[in-house]
Amino acid sequence: MDPRIEEHAKILVDWSTDVKKGEMVAIVASPLSHDLAVAVTRKVAEAGGQPMTLMSSEEINRAFYDGADDDILATEPAHMRALIEKCDAFIFIRSPMNTKALANVNPKRMMMVNKANQEISAIRLAKKWCLTVHPCLTLAQQANMSMDEYQDFVYGATLVDWKEESKNLFLMKEHLERHSDIRFVGPETDLYAKTEGRIWIASDGKHNMPSGEVFTAPIEDTVEGKIYFDIPFLQMGKVIEGVRLTFEKGEVVDFSAEKSEDALKTVIETDEGSRRLGEMAIGTNRGIKQYTLNMLFDEKIGDTIHCALGRAYKDNNGTNDSAVHVDMIKTMIEGEIIAGDEVIYSKGKYFYE
Amino acid sequence: MDPRIEEHAKILVDWSTDVKKGEMVAIVASPLSHDLAVAVTRKVAEAGGQPMTLMSSEEINRAFYDGADDDILATEPAHMRALIEKCDAFIFIRSPMNTKALANVNPKRMMMVNKANQEISAIRLAKKWCLTVHPCLTLAQQANMSMDEYQDFVYGATLVDWKEESKNLFLMKEHLERHSDIRFVGPETDLYAKTEGRIWIASDGKHNMPSGEVFTAPIEDTVEGKIYFDIPFLQMGKVIEGVRLTFEKGEVVDFSAEKSEDALKTVIETDEGSRRLGEMAIGTNRGIKQYTLNMLFDEKIGDTIHCALGRAYKDNNGTNDSAVHVDMIKTMIEGEIIAGDEVIYSKGKYFYE
Repeated sequence: MDPRIEEHAKILVDWSTDVKKGEMVAIVASPLSHDLAVAVTRKVAEAGGQPMTLMSSEEINRAFYDGADDDILATEPAHMRALIEKCDAFIFIRSPMNTKALANVNPKRMMMVNKANQEISAIRLAKKWCLTVHPCLTLAQQANMSMDEYQDFVYGATLVDWKEESKNLFLMKEHLERHSDIRFVGPETDLYAKTEGRIWIASDGKHNMPSGEVFTAPIEDTVEGKIYFDIPFLQMGKVIEGVRLTFEKGEVVDFSAEKSEDALKTVIETDEGSRRLGEMAIGTNRGIKQYTLNMLFDEKIGDTIHCALGRAYKDNNGTNDSAVHVDMIKTMIEGEIIAGDEVIYSKGKYFYE
Repeated sequence: MDPRIEEHAKILVDWSTDVKKGEMVAIVASPLSHDLAVAVTRKVAEAGGQPMTLMSSEEINRAFYDGADDDILATEPAHMRALIEKCDAFIFIRSPMNTKALANVNPKRMMMVNKANQEISAIRLAKKWCLTVHPCLTLAQQANMSMDEYQDFVYGATLVDWKEESKNLFLMKEHLERHSDIRFVGPETDLYAKTEGRIWIASDGKHNMPSGEVFTAPIEDTVEGKIYFDIPFLQMGKVIEGVRLTFEKGEVVDFSAEKSEDALKTVIETDEGSRRLGEMAIGTNRGIKQYTLNMLFDEKIGDTIHCALGRAYKDNNGTNDSAVHVDMIKTMIEGEIIAGDEVIYSKGKYFYE
C-alpha cells in the first residue's frame, strides 16, 4: 500500500477524530475509498477503537430515490439512528464514482430525505467527525489532473504537521478576535465588515481533512465595499468565474461574473439571506497549490480569502439564514487582510511568519 | 445495468427476505458487489423498506486483526449491536476481493472475534437474512471460468422460479419426514442412517441464494456403511478430492482421499464430533451444472447428495457437536435415495418428477 495512505489514515484517526480506547467508530466509504478504509480500520483498532465501515455511493443514493415513494423518503431510518447514537466518531471518505448520479433527482425529494435525517445529522455533528477524500479517477478528472498528479495534490494538502498548523491557526483566531472588524484589500477589492461578538473558528483538521482556514460570520448589515473573486467554483454543475460583488449596508447591490453570470444571479436571488454574506474566511494551507473545483480543498488554499453568500454557521454566532451557502475564493498574494489596526496578512506573509 | 442483476435483486428482496413496508434492511456488500447493492437498494425502497449498506471485505477484516490487541478483538462492537437490533432483514452479498487475506491470521484470534460477536450473530440469525454472491473476477477464477461464463453460471443458479422450486422442496421434506431413516445408494456407496425425530429442512432460497437442498441431521450413532464423494471441495485452502469413508455405529472407521488425504485426516481427527456426521442432504438445483469449489453453490447441485462431518444444525434437532462442519458432495446420477420404503430419487429422477 502507498505509505501515504497509511499516513493519511494516521492523521484521520490520531489527529482529526482522536480515537480513544473503547470508542465506537463508523467509517463511511465509497467502493473507491476501500484502500483508505482498510488503513483507517487498522489505525482505529491500534487506537483501541471498534471500527465498522458503511458503504456510500451516489448510485446507491440515486437507487433509493428511484425506488422510494415520498413517504419512504420522509421516514427516518431507525437502524441508522440506532447506529449513529452508539458511535463516538465518524470518518467520511469521499471518492465519488459518479458526481452526476443525483443530477436529475427532484430537489424537493432530496429535501425530504434531508429533513427525515435532520435529527440524525444533528446527533452526528455533536460527536467527533471528519470529512476527507481518497484519490480516485473521478476526482482526478474533475481536477484536470492525471491520477499520479492528483495523488500528489491530495497528499500535499493533507500530510501536513497539523499540530504546528493548528498553533498558527489558533494564534490567528486569537488576533482576529482582539478586533471588531475585518477588511480584505487587493486588486479591485476593498471589503469591510464588523465582527464584534462573532467567533472566529480555527479549522485545523478536526472536521475537514485537508483543512487550514480561519472563518467567521460577519455582522450581516455591516458588509460594505467591493470584491473580485478570481478563482472559479462549481455551483449546481456550472463553473462560475470572475465574480465581482458590491455591497451596501450588507446587501449585494451590484454583481457580475465573467462566466455563468446567470448561475450567480440565481444564487443571489434565492432569498433574503442569499444577498448577504454568511461567512468571511482566510485560507492558509500552502500544501494546496491550485484550485480543483472541490471546495473542501479550494477554500483552504494558502494566500487566499473566501466569502460565502447565504447561510451562516451557528458556531460562529452567525445569524444570516438562507437556503444556500456558496463559497467564492480570491487570491490575496497581492492583497492585505486587516483586522482593526493589525495587519493579519500582507502580500504572501501572515503576521506570524 | 445487466437486467439479470435487477432480477437477482428482486429475488433477494421479494422472495428471500420478503421485505415489507416500514422494515429496516441492512445490505452487506464488498466494493465488488456495488452494482448488486445498488439494485437491492432500489428494490428495498420499492418494497417500502429503509435500505442501508455496510461495506465488508477480507482486507478490512484483516486490517482489524493486524491493528487490534486481544482485548479489542474480544470486545463486542456496541454500534454494530445497536444496528443489528434495529434491523428486520439482512442481505449479505459476497464478492471476495482476496480470499486469502485472512490466511495468516491466528485461528485463536479469529475465534475471539467470533465469540465477541456471538450474541450479535444470534440476534441476526433470528431475523430474516439471506446470503448470496455477486459475480466477480475472484470467484470466476476460483471457478475456473471467464467472467462471462461465471455470470451465466451464477444467474443460471439463482434466477429460478423459487415458488415452484419451493413447492417441490417442501413436498420432498414432507415425504422424507414420513419415514424414520435415509439411505444413499450408488457406485461404491451404501450409506444408511436413522432420522427419527430429526427435522428435514427445505432450503428454498430464504437464507441461501442460490439454494435447492433438503437437509437433516442424522442420529449420530446410527450411521452405517460406506460412501464415495466424487466432487472436490476446498478445506483450509486445500482441494480435497475422491473421499471414501466407512462408518460403523456412526463413527468413521476407515477413510481415504485421492488428493489431500492429510487435510481430510486433520478434519476427521479434530474432535469427537468430527468423526461423525452432522448433516445428510439432497441437492436439487439443476441450474447449477458443475462444481466451482464454492460450497454455497456446490452443495445445491441437482442430482447430488452431500454429507457433513462435524457440527449439526440445531434447527434439524441435531445434537452432534464439533469445531468443524465440512460438507462433501456425491453425484447421484447413477444412484438412488431411499427413505423407509420410498424411493425419493433414482438415476436422474426425483419422485415428484
